[in-house]
Amino acid sequence: MSGGATEFAKSAQLFNSSIATWAVSAAWDIDLFQALTEADEIDIPWYAKKEEMDEPSLRYLLRALSYADVVEVDVDRVTRGATFEEFAQSKGLFQWLTKGYGSLFQRMGEVVYDKHRTGDYIRRDSTAVSIACRDANDVFMDAAFTEVLNGLDFSVAADLGCGSGERLIQLAKRDPSVTCVGLDIAAGAIEVGTAAVAAGGLQDRVTLIRGDARKLGEYEAFKDVELMTSFLMGHDFWPREQCVELFRGIRTQLPNLKHFVLCDTHRNADDETPDLPLFTMGFETAHALMGQYIPTREEWYSVFEESGWKCVKQHVYSTPANTVIFQLERVDSE
Amino acid sequence: MSGGATEFAKSAQLFNSSIATWAVSAAWDIDLFQALTEADEIDIPWYAKKEEMDEPSLRYLLRALSYADVVEVDVDRVTRGATFEEFAQSKGLFQWLTKGYGSLFQRMGEVVYDKHRTGDYIRRDSTAVSIACRDANDVFMDAAFTEVLNGLDFSVAADLGCGSGERLIQLAKRDPSVTCVGLDIAAGAIEVGTAAVAAGGLQDRVTLIRGDARKLGEYEAFKDVELMTSFLMGHDFWPREQCVELFRGIRTQLPNLKHFVLCDTHRNADDETPDLPLFTMGFETAHALMGQYIPTREEWYSVFEESGWKCVKQHVYSTPANTVIFQLERVDSE
Repeated sequence: MSGGATEFAKSAQLFNSSIATWAVSAAWDIDLFQALTEADEIDIPWYAKKEEMDEPSLRYLLRALSYADVVEVDVDRVTRGATFEEFAQSKGLFQWLTKGYGSLFQRMGEVVYDKHRTGDYIRRDSTAVSIACRDANDVFMDAAFTEVLNGLDFSVAADLGCGSGERLIQLAKRDPSVTCVGLDIAAGAIEVGTAAVAAGGLQDRVTLIRGDARKLGEYEAFKDVELMTSFLMGHDFWPREQCVELFRGIRTQLPNLKHFVLCDTHRNADDETPDLPLFTMGFETAHALMGQYIPTREEWYSVFEESGWKCVKQHVYSTPANTVIFQLERVDSE
Repeated sequence: MSGGATEFAKSAQLFNSSIATWAVSAAWDIDLFQALTEADEIDIPWYAKKEEMDEPSLRYLLRALSYADVVEVDVDRVTRGATFEEFAQSKGLFQWLTKGYGSLFQRMGEVVYDKHRTGDYIRRDSTAVSIACRDANDVFMDAAFTEVLNGLDFSVAADLGCGSGERLIQLAKRDPSVTCVGLDIAAGAIEVGTAAVAAGGLQDRVTLIRGDARKLGEYEAFKDVELMTSFLMGHDFWPREQCVELFRGIRTQLPNLKHFVLCDTHRNADDETPDLPLFTMGFETAHALMGQYIPTREEWYSVFEESGWKCVKQHVYSTPANTVIFQLERVDSE
C-alpha cells in the first residue's frame, strides 16, 4: 500500500494540494473560518446536524483541509490547525482561483490553441471574482489605503472601476464632508452598488454611474473630482497606448484632480518558478490565457511619465506579491 | 517582494500546485508528453507556431509544469524535467481530477448541504472520466490483468460495465478462439463500442449489450460465459445488500461461470492524512460528495463470502493505491 505515497510522491502532492485548494474555498463558503474563530473546537456530527449537512461530505472536506494543516481532526472533534490563520487571510485568493477562474484553468489545454481563442471563449465567474477581490482588499490592502488617504486633502473622490461601490461607501462613511462618484462598465455592479448606497443612506453623497472611463469629461458628476482611485484593474486599461491615453484624459478632463491612487498587481520579470509567491502564477497565467498583457512596474512608470503623472510614493505589498499602491500627482500641478 | 513566498508559504504551495495540476491535464490535452518523448527538446516559439497556439499561453502552461519539475524551460527551449516520466504515467488520474470531477470539487462548499444534494446535483464530465480511466487502466493495470488471464482457462468471457468495450476487444484479439459479451447501462458507450468492434472486424465474436446486470440470466449471450470481469466500478454495485444479491446472481444465473475477476479501488480506513497516496483523497472525497459509499477490503471479503465466491488470489496495486484485482472462484465449484 505504502508504495503509492513514495513512488508517485510529486503526483500525490499536486493531486492532494488541489483538493485542499478546493476545500479552502469550500471552507469559506460554509463559514468554517468564522465558526472556528468563534469556537476553539467543533463536534463534527453536531455541526453537520445543526447546519443540515451530509456528515461524510463534511468529514472529507475537513480531511482535505487537514492535509494542509488548516484544521486538525481527532475523531469527532475539529480544531484550528497550524495554518488556520494563514488560510483565513488568503481564502479570497483561493476563491479567485477555484470559483473565479477555475473553469478557465480547467480548459487550459483547449484555450492555448488559436482556433479556440475567438468569441466568448473566456469563462469565469465574475461574481466569485468580485467577492474574492473584495476579501483580498479588506484583508491585505485596507490598512495601507487608509494610511494613504490620511495624507491627502480632498472633498470629492472618484473610483474608476468602482464595482458595487464598497470603496466609495467606505470613503463617504469615513468623512461626512466628502462626496463620491463611481464609474463602472458593468450594469449589474452599478445596480447592486446603487442599492447598497441607498441602504446606507448615502444617496446624496455617493453617485454610481455606468459608463466609459474614456469620456470622464462628459460626466457632470466628475467635474469637481479631486481624488481618483482605481483598484486591481489597472492592467485592464492596457494595451499601453490606450492606457497612456486614458491616464492623460483623467488628468486633462478633470481640472480639479490632484491625486490619483492606483493599486494593481504587476508582472515581475525576475520571479523564479520554484519560489513563486502566492497569487503570482495564478494571476499571470489566467491573464495570459485571456490574452491580457500584464505590465511590469517599469512599464507603469513609463506610462505615468508619458501621461503627465508623477509617482510620489508607493506602498508595496508582500501578499499578494507584486501588488503596489502607486500614489500619483499631476506633473502640471507642481 | 520576497515576503510573499515566505509569509504565506503553505498557501503559495497549494495555490501553485493547483495550477500545476491543471497544467498536467492540459499537457496531455496538447500531446506534450508525446512530443517530449519523441524529441529531447522543443523550441517554444517554433512549437507554438507549428501547433497554431498562443505563445504566451503556452509559455505560462510550461511555467506551471516547470513548477512541478515536469519540464525544464530555458528561455525558448523546453526539455523533460525530473518528474516527466512520473506525470506521463499519472496524467490519467489528473484528468480524472480536473476535467472529470473538477466541477464537483469546485462546488464542494455547496454540495455538503443536504438541501443541495437532491435531483441532478452531481456534475461531472463522464467522457473525461472514461478517457482518464482507460489511460490509468493501460498504464497501471494492463500487465497484471494479462498475467491473471494467463492463468485462467475460458472460451467465453463477459465484462460487466464494459463501457466502450476495449477490454473485450483486447481479449478477443489476444485469443482468436474466445468469444466475448459486454454489458453496460450507458447507451452511448455501447454505441461507440459496437462501432469499435465492427471496425476491428470482431462482430462475430464480440457482442455488446445495453442492459441491466441484475438480469444476466435473461440474456442469451451470457448463458455460456466462463469468465466474468469487472473493472473500476465495483463500488457502484453497493449498497452492500444490493452487491451481495448481484454477485449471487452472477454465480447462480450463469451455470458455466468459473472465474470472476473484479478490480476496484477500495477504502483504506487506516490511511493517514499527511501521507495520502496519489488518487485516494480524490476518489474518496468525490464519492462522499456524490453520496456513494466506498467499501473497505474487509467489506469486500464479507460480500464474496455471503454471495458464494472465494477470493483465491489478489494483485495489489501501489498506484492507484488501494486498488486490487480480486480473483474469485465459485464456492460451489470446489
